[in-house]
Amino acid sequence: MSALPADFFGEIDPPQRLLMGPGPANVHPRVLRAMSADVLGQFDPEMTAYMNQTMALYRRVFMTENRWTFLIDGTARAGIEAALASLIEPGARVLILRAGRFGMLLSEIAERLDADIRVIDVEWGQIATLGQIEAGLAAHRPAVFAAIHGDTSTTTAQPLDGVGALCARYGALSYIDATATLGGMPVRTDEWGVDVVSGGLQKCMGGPPGCAPITISDRAAAFIFSRRKVESGIRRDDLADGARPAIRSNYFDLSMIMEYWSEKRLNHHTEATSMLYAARECARVMLQEGLDARFARHEAAGRAMVEGLRAMGLTVYGQDAYRMTNVTGVHIPDGVDGERVRRRMREEHQIEIGSAFGPLAGKIWRIGAMGYNAEPDKVRRTLAALRDVLDGA
Amino acid sequence: MSALPADFFGEIDPPQRLLMGPGPANVHPRVLRAMSADVLGQFDPEMTAYMNQTMALYRRVFMTENRWTFLIDGTARAGIEAALASLIEPGARVLILRAGRFGMLLSEIAERLDADIRVIDVEWGQIATLGQIEAGLAAHRPAVFAAIHGDTSTTTAQPLDGVGALCARYGALSYIDATATLGGMPVRTDEWGVDVVSGGLQKCMGGPPGCAPITISDRAAAFIFSRRKVESGIRRDDLADGARPAIRSNYFDLSMIMEYWSEKRLNHHTEATSMLYAARECARVMLQEGLDARFARHEAAGRAMVEGLRAMGLTVYGQDAYRMTNVTGVHIPDGVDGERVRRRMREEHQIEIGSAFGPLAGKIWRIGAMGYNAEPDKVRRTLAALRDVLDGA
Repeated sequence: MSALPADFFGEIDPPQRLLMGPGPANVHPRVLRAMSADVLGQFDPEMTAYMNQTMALYRRVFMTENRWTFLIDGTARAGIEAALASLIEPGARVLILRAGRFGMLLSEIAERLDADIRVIDVEWGQIATLGQIEAGLAAHRPAVFAAIHGDTSTTTAQPLDGVGALCARYGALSYIDATATLGGMPVRTDEWGVDVVSGGLQKCMGGPPGCAPITISDRAAAFIFSRRKVESGIRRDDLADGARPAIRSNYFDLSMIMEYWSEKRLNHHTEATSMLYAARECARVMLQEGLDARFARHEAAGRAMVEGLRAMGLTVYGQDAYRMTNVTGVHIPDGVDGERVRRRMREEHQIEIGSAFGPLAGKIWRIGAMGYNAEPDKVRRTLAALRDVLDGA
Repeated sequence: MSALPADFFGEIDPPQRLLMGPGPANVHPRVLRAMSADVLGQFDPEMTAYMNQTMALYRRVFMTENRWTFLIDGTARAGIEAALASLIEPGARVLILRAGRFGMLLSEIAERLDADIRVIDVEWGQIATLGQIEAGLAAHRPAVFAAIHGDTSTTTAQPLDGVGALCARYGALSYIDATATLGGMPVRTDEWGVDVVSGGLQKCMGGPPGCAPITISDRAAAFIFSRRKVESGIRRDDLADGARPAIRSNYFDLSMIMEYWSEKRLNHHTEATSMLYAARECARVMLQEGLDARFARHEAAGRAMVEGLRAMGLTVYGQDAYRMTNVTGVHIPDGVDGERVRRRMREEHQIEIGSAFGPLAGKIWRIGAMGYNAEPDKVRRTLAALRDVLDGA
């Protein structure tokens, strides 16, 4: 057995970084305190009351009346996979809007589910018009349409007004990933008319990574409940009864997870209690602030970031009209070593800013102001530090 | 929008229950404190140092030298599914030992993966002998063998000495679920010679639910890395190169998760930072206590529970030789309303004990003494409360 140091690596004692990248951001202290409460048994009436309260709170967060609004135990990516695995049958046609790294992730997951994948590909940093989306729906007649609301890889937010109604008209169920916008920009589930939306806590919700809130329309829930159940045994010959193919995952079988969160309380996993405490407190902080005030705070912080970067002579990436308010891309000036600047920001100023992926790797930094960090003083501190580092670069 | 109460349901403030069911158990205060630290960026050198330390700590916990020892972000069930989804190809033959509810879960997950399922079914509460396991391997020649170490549904621990060598002789990769035993009974990964073992924090590790430690042998890792990669795009025609079928999940693709935990640090999900802090502290607490002392503490608590229940004239379920040390089944006396007793234990004594599933539903209670709760005073308090409630029943 290989040796461990005598102190077993010491206590958890992280440096006090200011996390101004594309997420995670610093966690609201109230959320950290909520997580420090001891756990309860999963069917304790006090625990199931917390679960029901969390459902009610997230209906507000997702701006929806959807009964089925709850948490997936895993990171934001777990929420995406639970949605797609439950909505997509093998061979089903899926139309995916791809305009950045996370759009690519949707098609990667759909491929693993053996979907018949069709895509609307737009250049990174661009958006699709409602006309383009309708043309895709008309041409491909998919069973499922999937898109990203705010793709941090491009700092671009896809407008979604009218998308749900279009999908419904063409008979498609719709899925939206709102990981990077939930809590920071309006996620208008019911107004958009989309069927399933999932998010995370670690960006604008002011929580830690590891929990994926999700909301599901009755229409989508009915579809998911219509898929063949897989009991804890071997049943391979009951497709003749017309049931749809089973969901290929137990952990991501939303029909079972809904039954766990329903009055039936059917045992599935053991709810990740500490993360539920965190999610519940994130929503309480958000609703006490007020949705409009919160979105305005993110917008003001984002605008201050953009203006401050421009005032330094830097070129902001993307289009002002479709910019996410909570993360800003900025071109790395010619001759500047982007990674060296990031390292100096971290080491000299305790500030994290983000690098970029794919076609934008090495070309832009991504600077966030999310959740607890969407504050003028933190924007100013970040801009001042960046100016200091660039002056010395 | 439906109304929320004015106080938004108040702060998280759970009653102080003593959790003596089959898990979750109360969380060690050091672990709760570790989770109250703020998060770090996922590629921050301090964060990746915590990840590497966590790998080293869990090698000790799993009693292994396996390089690939890390965390799955999700509940213990997520660890099970990550292992099976990565080891089982569609159509692959899988031999599953089923002796309780969690053995049934293994076959349910395998069915969703379209495995060719063979089973060794033994009566609930019984174990399979090494001879039965060898006969199954010889008869079915499976690609994968899967079993549960301690199945809380039956409070029975399956002996695993020699199982890994047998599987290797018959060419099977082996998977063991140790959710309910890790941290309480010896999980001798290398001595057993098994390939993949996963666990959870919420039972004997003294942590909250929501994180699944896992360890993977080099042999199993090589197999998993040999499965076809799915890039973020559409590639459906490259099976001709002889690669094995892709893993059907992105979230549970252990090859990608290993690359995230390796020096390559390839981006996958964003690690659930607070749960990693919890997992790391659980392991530190365990290793500072010492493995032998910890196993002895659980054994003493379990023995005290069994003896105390018998001294009250109750009949303990199962066989003494194969009893899990951390959870005890006890028959509900004739004429006693088991659920009413559980409710009175909770309401009058703040103590949770467990009900049972399947063929044991309504027949036994399951009383745990796990992790932070495997202490003589907590066993005595539970026994005294049960005596009090039964005297008044």
